[in-house]
Amino acid sequence: MTTGYDAMSMEAIAARAGVGKQTIYRWWPSKAALVLDVWVDATSPDARMPDTGDLAADLKTQLSCVVGRLSEPLLGSNFLSVVADSQRDERLATALSDTLFAPRIADCKHRLRTGQAAGQLRKDIDLDTVIDLLYGAIHYRLLFRLGHPDRALTDALVDAALSGVAPRPRRAGAPVQRSGATR
Amino acid sequence: MTTGYDAMSMEAIAARAGVGKQTIYRWWPSKAALVLDVWVDATSPDARMPDTGDLAADLKTQLSCVVGRLSEPLLGSNFLSVVADSQRDERLATALSDTLFAPRIADCKHRLRTGQAAGQLRKDIDLDTVIDLLYGAIHYRLLFRLGHPDRALTDALVDAALSGVAPRPRRAGAPVQRSGATR
Repeated sequence: MTTGYDAMSMEAIAARAGVGKQTIYRWWPSKAALVLDVWVDATSPDARMPDTGDLAADLKTQLSCVVGRLSEPLLGSNFLSVVADSQRDERLATALSDTLFAPRIADCKHRLRTGQAAGQLRKDIDLDTVIDLLYGAIHYRLLFRLGHPDRALTDALVDAALSGVAPRPRRAGAPVQRSGATR
Repeated sequence: MTTGYDAMSMEAIAARAGVGKQTIYRWWPSKAALVLDVWVDATSPDARMPDTGDLAADLKTQLSCVVGRLSEPLLGSNFLSVVADSQRDERLATALSDTLFAPRIADCKHRLRTGQAAGQLRKDIDLDTVIDLLYGAIHYRLLFRLGHPDRALTDALVDAALSGVAPRPRRAGAPVQRSGATR
């Protein structure tokens, strides 16, 4: 996958593979569906959530890895092109969900569950909410060009989601913070 | 704006307005740019962040309002169509950012700053991070068809972002929670 999405044609792909265009269309209903499959294959080796026992560190590693892949020009723009096409192509939207999001969300939830069992996540928190907050944030930045996320941002997102953005109640014996939060 | 995005043509819009197609193109470089302007106008009256003094309640009201507008079939699908087109149209991406995201993010940050001054947000938290977590989550759900957000979800997102998804340190004098978090 070295050609940009817009310059790529199903004819050229078929020619390169030494097969007829009909053979390509038998497997992939559209260029976007084919690009999606190649994309999922290319990024799968790095996509697994690590488990070092430290949930915050693992989430930071994983988010930074996702952002890193999406920062590669070809991988990034192919992803955005598939997302764009999926807004008006229900079959592609389903493929995107089934082949990319569903398995990666399931893998992430498995790690969150381990973290929850280890007391690193609240017992009453819905795991989908954790995923929405963190993965939502990086995709929001990318899709709406709100500043490309970097490692500092993904670390800050994990810290904010874990600790909360509201002031924490005082710990027993901790000194009173000199901030508006305690006024 | 009662016709769906794909069925709409610049010719039909010009005819309806009683002007030539060139007049329309003088103001909007593309159909998506025109739809974006109409969209921003249609949703602006409800878009302001309320300020009742209770930041959590105001964020819940505002997120639920955004989700409500994006749940309207025509407004929702027109938004997704503009987002889709903006992935390959830099000029449209800039217009989306300048006319929609920048002013609404500025308005939201103004309210977050008031909340921060009132001690309802940590002093050390970056306001963009709060916006990324909350607004990222709802757009992530919508764009990737991960289950349409409803009021219960937006409330849960605000509670999770404010309180944090990790267990909170025990408050002075509070009873010990009977959960893995304290083991």
